Amino acid sequence: MSQLTDIDIAKQTDKKPINAIAKKLGISEEGFIPYGHYKAKIDVKMNKEDFEKNKGKLVLVTAISPTPAGEGKTTMSVGLADGLAQIGKKSVLALREPSLGPVFGMKGGAAGGGYAQVVPMEDINLHFTGDFHAISSAHNLISALLDNHIHHGNSLNIDSRKIHWKRVVDMNDRQLRHIVNGLNGSTNGVPREDGYDITVASEIMAIFCLSEDLVDLKERISRIIVAYTHDNQPVTVDDLKGSGAVTALLVDAFKPNLVQTLENTPAFIHGGPFANIAHGCNSILATKHALNYGDYAVTEAGFGADLGGEKFIDIKCRTAGLSPDAVVVVATVKA
Amino acid sequence: MSQLTDIDIAKQTDKKPINAIAKKLGISEEGFIPYGHYKAKIDVKMNKEDFEKNKGKLVLVTAISPTPAGEGKTTMSVGLADGLAQIGKKSVLALREPSLGPVFGMKGGAAGGGYAQVVPMEDINLHFTGDFHAISSAHNLISALLDNHIHHGNSLNIDSRKIHWKRVVDMNDRQLRHIVNGLNGSTNGVPREDGYDITVASEIMAIFCLSEDLVDLKERISRIIVAYTHDNQPVTVDDLKGSGAVTALLVDAFKPNLVQTLENTPAFIHGGPFANIAHGCNSILATKHALNYGDYAVTEAGFGADLGGEKFIDIKCRTAGLSPDAVVVVATVKA
Amino acid sequence: MSQLTDIDIAKQTDKKPINAIAKKLGISEEGFIPYGHYKAKIDVKMNKEDFEKNKGKLVLVTAISPTPAGEGKTTMSVGLADGLAQIGKKSVLALREPSLGPVFGMKGGAAGGGYAQVVPMEDINLHFTGDFHAISSAHNLISALLDNHIHHGNSLNIDSRKIHWKRVVDMNDRQLRHIVNGLNGSTNGVPREDGYDITVASEIMAIFCLSEDLVDLKERISRIIVAYTHDNQPVTVDDLKGSGAVTALLVDAFKPNLVQTLENTPAFIHGGPFANIAHGCNSILATKHALNYGDYAVTEAGFGADLGGEKFIDIKCRTAGLSPDAVVVVATVKA
Amino acid sequence: MSQLTDIDIAKQTDKKPINAIAKKLGISEEGFIPYGHYKAKIDVKMNKEDFEKNKGKLVLVTAISPTPAGEGKTTMSVGLADGLAQIGKKSVLALREPSLGPVFGMKGGAAGGGYAQVVPMEDINLHFTGDFHAISSAHNLISALLDNHIHHGNSLNIDSRKIHWKRVVDMNDRQLRHIVNGLNGSTNGVPREDGYDITVASEIMAIFCLSEDLVDLKERISRIIVAYTHDNQPVTVDDLKGSGAVTALLVDAFKPNLVQTLENTPAFIHGGPFANIAHGCNSILATKHALNYGDYAVTEAGFGADLGGEKFIDIKCRTAGLSPDAVVVVATVKA
Repeated sequence: MSQLTDIDIAKQTDKKPINAIAKKLGISEEGFIPYGHYKAKIDVKMNKEDFEKNKGKLVLVTAISPTPAGEGKTTMSVGLADGLAQIGKKSVLALREPSLGPVFGMKGGAAGGGYAQVVPMEDINLHFTGDFHAISSAHNLISALLDNHIHHGNSLNIDSRKIHWKRVVDMNDRQLRHIVNGLNGSTNGVPREDGYDITVASEIMAIFCLSEDLVDLKERISRIIVAYTHDNQPVTVDDLKGSGAVTALLVDAFKPNLVQTLENTPAFIHGGPFANIAHGCNSILATKHALNYGDYAVTEAGFGADLGGEKFIDIKCRTAGLSPDAVVVVATVKA
Repeated sequence: MSQLTDIDIAKQTDKKPINAIAKKLGISEEGFIPYGHYKAKIDVKMNKEDFEKNKGKLVLVTAISPTPAGEGKTTMSVGLADGLAQIGKKSVLALREPSLGPVFGMKGGAAGGGYAQVVPMEDINLHFTGDFHAISSAHNLISALLDNHIHHGNSLNIDSRKIHWKRVVDMNDRQLRHIVNGLNGSTNGVPREDGYDITVASEIMAIFCLSEDLVDLKERISRIIVAYTHDNQPVTVDDLKGSGAVTALLVDAFKPNLVQTLENTPAFIHGGPFANIAHGCNSILATKHALNYGDYAVTEAGFGADLGGEKFIDIKCRTAGLSPDAVVVVATVKA
Repeated sequence: MSQLTDIDIAKQTDKKPINAIAKKLGISEEGFIPYGHYKAKIDVKMNKEDFEKNKGKLVLVTAISPTPAGEGKTTMSVGLADGLAQIGKKSVLALREPSLGPVFGMKGGAAGGGYAQVVPMEDINLHFTGDFHAISSAHNLISALLDNHIHHGNSLNIDSRKIHWKRVVDMNDRQLRHIVNGLNGSTNGVPREDGYDITVASEIMAIFCLSEDLVDLKERISRIIVAYTHDNQPVTVDDLKGSGAVTALLVDAFKPNLVQTLENTPAFIHGGPFANIAHGCNSILATKHALNYGDYAVTEAGFGADLGGEKFIDIKCRTAGLSPDAVVVVATVKA
Repeated sequence: MSQLTDIDIAKQTDKKPINAIAKKLGISEEGFIPYGHYKAKIDVKMNKEDFEKNKGKLVLVTAISPTPAGEGKTTMSVGLADGLAQIGKKSVLALREPSLGPVFGMKGGAAGGGYAQVVPMEDINLHFTGDFHAISSAHNLISALLDNHIHHGNSLNIDSRKIHWKRVVDMNDRQLRHIVNGLNGSTNGVPREDGYDITVASEIMAIFCLSEDLVDLKERISRIIVAYTHDNQPVTVDDLKGSGAVTALLVDAFKPNLVQTLENTPAFIHGGPFANIAHGCNSILATKHALNYGDYAVTEAGFGADLGGEKFIDIKCRTAGLSPDAVVVVATVKA
């Protein structure tokens, strides 16, 4: 008998409607926005006092130095949450959203595997609820505002050779890493060197995951340094008068996404910065929601304990005022 | 008393939940996928016989040669559908989705105005149900596959100076119109001239709006000519083995979107190719759904009667086997 | 017996030392600077009164609309001058210098052919006396000054998209026609679109051929418009403070070159602007020297009578105060 | 009384006609080609046996680690040669030609200074006898052949991202250091990254200075590796069938230049590779001529003893079969 693939397993399993999952967490009809039958965005303004009152236990899953094959952190996290549920605990997952990029590149999806998956797997691995599209649009709007400013007289005196804000695309596209744009005469921008990073490497992605609320998000966006002037003075998104429009593009995306495991354990999947260049874990908002609605919130930090684990503690926990109650280190013989 | 803005009017008005709108059309719970409380995607496999049996009357709204201010075709369409409903007719709208591009540029949104609007206006004008993001991703995936092929040995012998498939972005960004990419050495692609069109000018957008079903869509995608070889032979998406992955990115987007007018008339808003370079009207699928569920389907063609009107008749009607039962020509003194 | 090639004929023939040719014209030892044994530059300050006193007859050789093969204007000019010498007239040639470019491209040299050649043919077709190298250097020095100015703060407010001064190279090199330069960060110039013309298309070449003396040359150089500011004001070489250095590079080149035909008729070969984009004939200085030292000065205008011939009359003759005493129109059956 | 500048001193001094200098060395009229009255190229085929028979003493001038101001190696070399002449020795200089580049940049000329100069200083610092123009043309002809080959079908399978042969220009022009060329469609080459080095950094310059004769020069040129194929096989000038044409452009330049010091000591000035990236001393041919015609040949190596001095010994001496009889190390308090 041949082994079932992840997608076979995912398709065989009965998912519960997302309102049943929300109900399990005690979220009312008004508290979530359905995105199809099995995905939702939570639309609850979380009160600081409520959060302090209802805070569950935080379990961090990390790993020893990873091999290219992956050590199974996500699988372990899903299994752990499902196991806690099996023994009667109210457990909730808080995980990162996968990038569209690696899906069409080499790596598999990032929704676990085998019987320890988060579903609907195909949706999660493709457009999901559009968060990464929104982040890409918000990021690239800043680029467009920047180039538009230079094109129209450059009153901020920006040195186009000192622009540190590259564009992003949610796809592995090496052809775009280094480009020259603004070509073809004076009506098509100003020639300069530019390039694309992958969306998960966007500073917007990092900020998105570290912000407490929309006000905080907008404030952080306004302070981003995108370039330097000919006099080496920093130029921010605020200088470009872009904070409002950029934040507007992120309003929906900023709401945490709710899905379920194959065993119907609730899972918040929200935000996904790279661990190598950013802090590599899901949004603070998702973690706080998981802690608020669950007795145990199981979350994960990218890469090994020495990189992603440290960043989780040093960056995310400090920013959010959190500290893990337990840490699981996944170790494999291979690694 | 100062005049209310479009957005003020939109906010003052009570929207009905989208399931009520779907119910009005006779669509069951299983027949639609909610995207929040006021948007849905229709998930009904339309049978050719059903469609032939239930076909309503098709009303085309077009205009005399337009001025930059716009002549009010959308407002007229919305008003006409609402008026038909007021006199007891089962009327349904079929309109184009607006581009994110112009929203952040000069032009206003494309959801009508005053008391003749389609809502939720802000959603429709921003990410809506993610269709344009999906189309952009699908389009740019072809570019990435093409460049990847050239990078890895170029067995198809593509002449990189004869690539006619530019990338797209759903934003007015003049800096990207003409670029050189693939720079910075042999690990970062192959240098070539490229550029970005706006997403509404994508050939994927045009094909998307002309396809009968997913099989037809995939077939049309596979035949797209993206480049020529050094021997001037055409290279298609099929040659790049990209049809499947590209279509996969469009599966959700391809389902027609359902919203409502301020007077709760059902409106299908789906697809939006430019009228200047493509055929300029909403998807055939949306029009067919409108004709199937309504006695009167009110639809619109971009630009004037001499451009968009002709394209509607010559391209869309022929492809879809439709013909308008009535044509409304909007005329203003200014135009 | 096989036919002799041009180069065989040229090598078989005895050339006279260049001082013998200079002596024939009545030029003293101090009046010329030898460049090897068979080339010289004339270093005589020509007085306006002297020139008016000694003016010979000016014979212009032109042609009907040319075919790609060439109609033989140069061969005709050389033959005519040699013929006049044979019947005892003191005849002198005034011709254009050939470009290195076509030599390594498709076209043959430009020193006549058969028994009607100017020699030393190989020298003339390669570096000759370095005039084109000097003109290329002078031209490109302006480009370097311009880019240097922009790099160091751009106090003239030059719009780098409105630079109309391309670089030049004395070679057919299509790869350089359209380039982007100033790449690789802020220490390597400012990115902009640029390109190379062939040296014979340089405005310096045209000016060089129309100038009366070095003062006039410098004055004309100073007035060249190289770019426009962001406010659409013209920027000249004078604004870049480059006239002196640019002229300095041209001091030697500006002296007319003296060689001989296979029959030892003196020939001034000096300057060579393209007839399609400039006026297409040798320097005014060379023509004036030919008229001063000869009873008959035979000269040539590029392309056909309707293009090069007209430019000779309208531009060169007016600027120099000349008018041809006779015009020869070369006609072939093929053309 | 104000101090005289180098150029004032140079102008005040009587130069001897170049044929007098040649005569002093025992070179017949046929043995040299005048380039004006004070410069010549030596046209003597030097026989190996003659050279072995007549070899003088070789004196190398080098310096301790240099400061930006220069330590005076050239001035010392000139002074030493003049001094040897003063005490009745037959001394001859062998020096590098200066680049046009630094002349229009920051550094002064490279013909010595004060009363220890080589003249005609202005000629030497500008176009001189055209050697650098010829080397630039020869170098860039290889680039043009390479790009032409790729444009016309690329039968050698060259990977345009692995071209290590940059173009050169004899000018300090930072704007050209990094460029993209071959732009503007399929008739204008193939887009690729390229850039310009300064002519003194050309591999042609280095080879030129190390070659025994034209046959050796052509052979060395043919072996230059300019690029690699997609299979990482080297591509040489010989593969491009360029050795003949490239060498043809260097025939005149390859003849050593003869000038004089202010005290009429003969000086061979020929070739000038950078000491930082090449071996930094004049041509082997010039040194051999100096050794052949003089009892003492005074020559110089660029930069300090630890760089230029070592390269002189390790590279030039080994290649040419020479060894210095005396070494002078210039030391200044500042350095």
